[in-house]
Amino acid sequence: MKKIAVSVGDINGVGIEIALKAHNEISKICKPVYCINDKLLAHAAKLLNVDIPKDFQTVKMDADFEIKPSTIDANSGRFSYESFIKAIGLCESDKADAVVTMPIHKEAWSLAGLDYKGHTDLLRKHFKQDAIMMLGCEKMFVALYTEHIPLKDVAKSIKQDKLVSFFLDLDTSLPKAKIAVLGLNPHAGDNGVLGDEEREIEAAIKSVNDKLGFERYVGCLVPDVAFTPDARKNFNYYVAMYHDQGLTPLKALYFDESVNISLNLPIVRTSVDHGTAFDIAYQGKAKTLSYINAVKSAISLCNKE
Amino acid sequence: MKKIAVSVGDINGVGIEIALKAHNEISKICKPVYCINDKLLAHAAKLLNVDIPKDFQTVKMDADFEIKPSTIDANSGRFSYESFIKAIGLCESDKADAVVTMPIHKEAWSLAGLDYKGHTDLLRKHFKQDAIMMLGCEKMFVALYTEHIPLKDVAKSIKQDKLVSFFLDLDTSLPKAKIAVLGLNPHAGDNGVLGDEEREIEAAIKSVNDKLGFERYVGCLVPDVAFTPDARKNFNYYVAMYHDQGLTPLKALYFDESVNISLNLPIVRTSVDHGTAFDIAYQGKAKTLSYINAVKSAISLCNKE
Repeated sequence: MKKIAVSVGDINGVGIEIALKAHNEISKICKPVYCINDKLLAHAAKLLNVDIPKDFQTVKMDADFEIKPSTIDANSGRFSYESFIKAIGLCESDKADAVVTMPIHKEAWSLAGLDYKGHTDLLRKHFKQDAIMMLGCEKMFVALYTEHIPLKDVAKSIKQDKLVSFFLDLDTSLPKAKIAVLGLNPHAGDNGVLGDEEREIEAAIKSVNDKLGFERYVGCLVPDVAFTPDARKNFNYYVAMYHDQGLTPLKALYFDESVNISLNLPIVRTSVDHGTAFDIAYQGKAKTLSYINAVKSAISLCNKE
Repeated sequence: MKKIAVSVGDINGVGIEIALKAHNEISKICKPVYCINDKLLAHAAKLLNVDIPKDFQTVKMDADFEIKPSTIDANSGRFSYESFIKAIGLCESDKADAVVTMPIHKEAWSLAGLDYKGHTDLLRKHFKQDAIMMLGCEKMFVALYTEHIPLKDVAKSIKQDKLVSFFLDLDTSLPKAKIAVLGLNPHAGDNGVLGDEEREIEAAIKSVNDKLGFERYVGCLVPDVAFTPDARKNFNYYVAMYHDQGLTPLKALYFDESVNISLNLPIVRTSVDHGTAFDIAYQGKAKTLSYINAVKSAISLCNKE
């Protein structure tokens, strides 16, 4: 069974509750190793009024602070960072096969003086490599060509050479199914009447398909009809040109099931696709589906390699 | 019962098939008047191998050409325009209460020398008024603040004064429910880090709510979480800042059910939310749900007034 290093996220949020709740289920399909300090774990279990499973394997980590449920806090921010770094280290030293991350709180990282936008940003800087962000579930995955940039800057990022290298990187990361590529503009530009960035996208698709020797990428699809029930029968993988183009339909359809995956890195990393959920932390209400799917995705990505 | 003038759309497409198929059902809730030439109707019925219902009331219209199923044709383009103009005329002369339109083919209009982008564009020019385009079904309607413009031009259209007049126009057209307003940028700008157009939108919301004396508009919502199942429980009406922001999740969720509505005009006009479907024209395969919903929406908009 694959060893999964679990980064527990912000200890004031729902991460540890989900990890405890889902432990028995995920232990059937992998060997989880939890990157958490034992005293914090004991405190969390007490707050949640649950027992710590006997086979809940942790790695030694220092921590000298208390859990403050639902609170943005420098200590918990710092610890969620250390848990993530520990999990990455386990993979780099071959003590784990993949990292699965629980949500961190960006403001808590900022309070702790950590200058990263989030997990993916840290991974990019750590590995000095262009991670690709892909979100979704078995029924539908969306890889993002651009991510956290203002909408007004999206159009100028649509350049053939950048698209070609994105498509080539993504190709090596995914199973050999056809990948749908969305246009940028309404009606995919309507032959240039509503914008012409589709020409760059289509040229990139052609160039990459020629290089790969088969029709790996299909497009440009008209964005607003690419996710209708009929259209989804044809594709499991999509490339969105910008954040909301892909994530809005994904979350409308599969919010609870979705996971976040970092591709094109030396290690496999998947994550839940929700935040710290301070509004329901330590109330026994957190759902485990996204986490369990994140673990399953991590295992299947490990087996692909 | 309300009288509905039905513009039959491109006669080489699926419009007339749908009208014939759905006639009995819609006759229970309204009095339809079909803007079609009788010879064309007889030809269509013959091609479809169906009888024309005895109470299928038409208005007199000239036509001197043959139906060519699935063909882009100047004559059918011209006739679909004349059918629409006739239907509008029936409303203007109080012989009908609303217009329901079947799909036209834009290239056929262009071949016929008609210089309109579509139904809504024609309505704007005819009435010299800023029609608002809203799409959806009972469960979820989306009004579009910008429509058929390149994505790169969207951000510069987000201006407080234009938003204020859009919100005020929309207010007079819709039932008194709260209306959700989407942000423009990923995470609704994340407090300005990912774009700052949300400030214009929020200022407009505040100004309009103050003027109306209650919280008519709510926002800015984070676009990619505004359509999750939980979020949709709170709203039936959304304002999207651009075409694909609203229509992509709408069509992912409710493609077959959706209708297209023109608001802020002297007449009520609704439409099916699909095209001429030349690929299945005259094969008996066309679905009637969008049309029936368009008729129902037209009736309820008439009753609102």
